[in-house]
Amino acid sequence: MQTIAFSRGVTALPVPATVPATADAIAFESGLACPDLLPDLGEIAAEAASRRRSETLQYGPRPGLPDLRGWIAQYMKEDGVPNSAAERVLVVNGAKQGLELLCRLLLDEGDSIVVTAPTYFTAIPIFRSFGARLIQIAQDNDGLVVDELKDRLDHLSSRGGSMPKFVYDVPDFHNPTGVTMSYARRKALLEICAQRNIMIVEDSPYRKIRFEGDSLPSLKALDTADIVLALGTFSKLVAPGLRVGWISATPEIVKRLAQIKADAGSCPLTQRIITEFCKSGRLGNHVANVRRAYGEHRDRMVAALRRSIDGISFSIPTGGYYLWIKLPEYIDADDLERRAHDEGVAVLSGTRFFASSEVMNNAAPSRYVRLAYSFATLEQIDEGVERLARAFKAIVRDS
Amino acid sequence: MQTIAFSRGVTALPVPATVPATADAIAFESGLACPDLLPDLGEIAAEAASRRRSETLQYGPRPGLPDLRGWIAQYMKEDGVPNSAAERVLVVNGAKQGLELLCRLLLDEGDSIVVTAPTYFTAIPIFRSFGARLIQIAQDNDGLVVDELKDRLDHLSSRGGSMPKFVYDVPDFHNPTGVTMSYARRKALLEICAQRNIMIVEDSPYRKIRFEGDSLPSLKALDTADIVLALGTFSKLVAPGLRVGWISATPEIVKRLAQIKADAGSCPLTQRIITEFCKSGRLGNHVANVRRAYGEHRDRMVAALRRSIDGISFSIPTGGYYLWIKLPEYIDADDLERRAHDEGVAVLSGTRFFASSEVMNNAAPSRYVRLAYSFATLEQIDEGVERLARAFKAIVRDS
Repeated sequence: MQTIAFSRGVTALPVPATVPATADAIAFESGLACPDLLPDLGEIAAEAASRRRSETLQYGPRPGLPDLRGWIAQYMKEDGVPNSAAERVLVVNGAKQGLELLCRLLLDEGDSIVVTAPTYFTAIPIFRSFGARLIQIAQDNDGLVVDELKDRLDHLSSRGGSMPKFVYDVPDFHNPTGVTMSYARRKALLEICAQRNIMIVEDSPYRKIRFEGDSLPSLKALDTADIVLALGTFSKLVAPGLRVGWISATPEIVKRLAQIKADAGSCPLTQRIITEFCKSGRLGNHVANVRRAYGEHRDRMVAALRRSIDGISFSIPTGGYYLWIKLPEYIDADDLERRAHDEGVAVLSGTRFFASSEVMNNAAPSRYVRLAYSFATLEQIDEGVERLARAFKAIVRDS
Repeated sequence: MQTIAFSRGVTALPVPATVPATADAIAFESGLACPDLLPDLGEIAAEAASRRRSETLQYGPRPGLPDLRGWIAQYMKEDGVPNSAAERVLVVNGAKQGLELLCRLLLDEGDSIVVTAPTYFTAIPIFRSFGARLIQIAQDNDGLVVDELKDRLDHLSSRGGSMPKFVYDVPDFHNPTGVTMSYARRKALLEICAQRNIMIVEDSPYRKIRFEGDSLPSLKALDTADIVLALGTFSKLVAPGLRVGWISATPEIVKRLAQIKADAGSCPLTQRIITEFCKSGRLGNHVANVRRAYGEHRDRMVAALRRSIDGISFSIPTGGYYLWIKLPEYIDADDLERRAHDEGVAVLSGTRFFASSEVMNNAAPSRYVRLAYSFATLEQIDEGVERLARAFKAIVRDS
C-alpha cells in the first residue's frame, strides 16, 4: 500500500455529521421521510422501465427530460415566478448536486459567500471544499438580518474588499431553525444584493410542507434582477431516494451548468417516474397528506417536549421538518447529543450548524439542538422525547 | 440581469462534444446502447418501487446499498481480483461521477496526470476542470507505450519535477481506439507506477463486451501494491440510463470518497433494480446477447467500410463499441465531421480525443475519426457508411 497524497481541499473536509444509530435508536437527527408517507410508485415504475425503456434506460439529455423541465417550469409559474420557462430549468441529482454545481460555476478559492448562522449543515463542507470563506450573518424570527448583512457589505466595500459571490439561504422553514423569512426581509435582501451584483442561492426544499397560513412569495418570484438561483427538489415532495432536484436560473447559467454537469445527464428512469407521478395529479393529494401528517408529528413533539422537559424554549414552526430547541444554560449541546445517543435517541447538536464557533448575537452554537419530527412515528416521538428527558436528567445529575 | 463572474476553472471548460443531430441523422458518434438490447426491467422496477419502497424511496446509505456492494465485490472476485470485498466498493452515479470524485480526492491545481493519446474525450474536460496538467503518452496496438512513460517519468525526476498523481487508462477495448493492452504492458505499467508511488485509474466500461478471444487479467487483478482505482459501470452491462457505477479501491479511499460524495447517497431505487437484475441471473444471458449483437454490428460496419470507402485503415477491435479510422492524407478529420453531418451521419473527429493538438508519433489527431457501431441498427450502419462515403467524395471533389 502506497502513501497517498490527498488533495489539500479534501484533507480539510470535515467528516460529515452522521450519528451511528443503534438498532432501536429513535431518529430525531435526520430529514428522512416518514416511511408511511412514501407513495407506491410500482405501476408508474413498471411502465417507465418497460414500455418507455428506449427513453428511460438510455442516456438522457444533459439538462433533463423536456417533459420534466416543462412540468417544473409550470409548477414554478403557479408558485408565482413570472418568467418561469423550461429553458430556465436544469434537472439535477438532488439539490445537493445543484449546490455543488453552483459552487463549481461561481467560486474560486478564497471567494467569500454569505450564510445564515446557523445554516444547513451539509452545505458547510460543500462550500469549504471549494475554498470559500463563509461570512456568517445572524438570523432572527424574520429570517436573515438584512441590516447586519448591509453593514458587513458596506464595511467590506469601505476597505476595498471584494463582494461575496452569493448569499445562501433557506427562506422557507429554514433548516435548522424552522424560521420563514418575512416579506420585508425578502424585498430588502433582493435589493441590496441586486445593487451590489451578488447572487442569491435560494434553497427551498420545505416550501410546500406548510401546516398553517399562506406562503410568502419565493425570492425567485420577487427577483426582477435575475440574481436568484433557485434550488428545488422532489425529495420532500415525493421521495428522497429518487435523487431528483432542479436549479432554476437564467438560460445562460442553465447552459453553463449543463456543460459542467459531467454525468451524462441525470437518470431518465427516475425523472420519468416523477414526471408521471406529478402529471397524474397524485402529487396534489400526496402533498396534502404529507402536510397533514407532518403537522401532526410537529404537534406531537411539541406536546411531548412541553410535558417532559423543563427549561427549554423554541418557536413553533408553521412547516418543515425541524424544531430548533434552545437549551437551558447548564446544558451543553454536544454533551446532550452524546447523552441522548446513550439513551437511544439521535439528535444533532447546534454546533454542527454553524460555519464557525463564534457566538452570533444570542445564537451560541452549543446552546441549541435540532430535532427532526419527520421520520419518527407518533409513538416514537413520545418515546424519543422521554429518552431525551432522561439525557437531560443525567446531565443535571452528573454536573 | 447582472454580470456574473464565473469561476476561472469553469470559464476554461470547453463545450462538451455533442453533435446536434438532425431528425433522420444516423448516430455513429455516441456510446448509446442499441435500443433493441435494453432489457425489460418493468417487473423488477415495480417490485422495487412498491413493496421495497421503504428502502428505495428513502435516502440510501452513502457508500451504496450493501447488497449491491456485495454483488459487485463478488463479480470482481470472479473476474480475478483477489482482495475484492464489499468495503472496497463505492457505488457512484455512473463512472463519470467516479472519475470526478477521484479527481476531487487526489488533485490539486497544477498536479499532473498521465493519459493516453488519444483518450476518452469526456475525461479531458473533467481533468482540466481540476486544473490538472495532462501528460500525453503514445499508444500502439499493445496499449499505452510504457517505455515512453518510463522515459518521461525519469526525465521529470532528473529535473526534480513532481510525479504525476495518476495514470488514467482504458485498458480493455480502449475508447476511442478499441485497443486492448497486452499482458506484458499491464505488468510493466503496474511495476513502474508502484515504484514511483503513482496511482492508476483503470476505467473499464467495455471489459465484458468481448466478441472473440479471452480476457486478460484486469490491472486491478494484477495489482499487488493496491495502487489501482478501478472504475466500473452498469451502463454497458445493463443500461446507460440507470446511472449506476462503482469505484473499487482500498477501504480507506472508499471511506474518504464517501465523505466527499455530497449527494446523500446514490439513488437506492436504481441500485435495487440493478441488484435484482444481476441476482436473478438475467445478467449472464443479457451480456451474451449484447456481445453477440455488437459483434454483428462491428462486422456489418467493417464490411460496409471496406465496400464503400477507399484509402482508410483501421484495426478490427475484438470488443467494445468503436472503430478508430485512420484517414487518407487528403482528408482532415474536422472537415469530415462537418461534411458527414451535412450528409446525415454523425461521427467524431479524432481531434476531440487528444489533450493537446501536438502530433503523437504517428497519431496526428486530425488523421482519425471515431465511429461507434453500438447504437445504429444493421440497416442504419449500411446507410450511415454510404453517407460517410458521400462525405469523403464531397471533400475530394471540392479540394
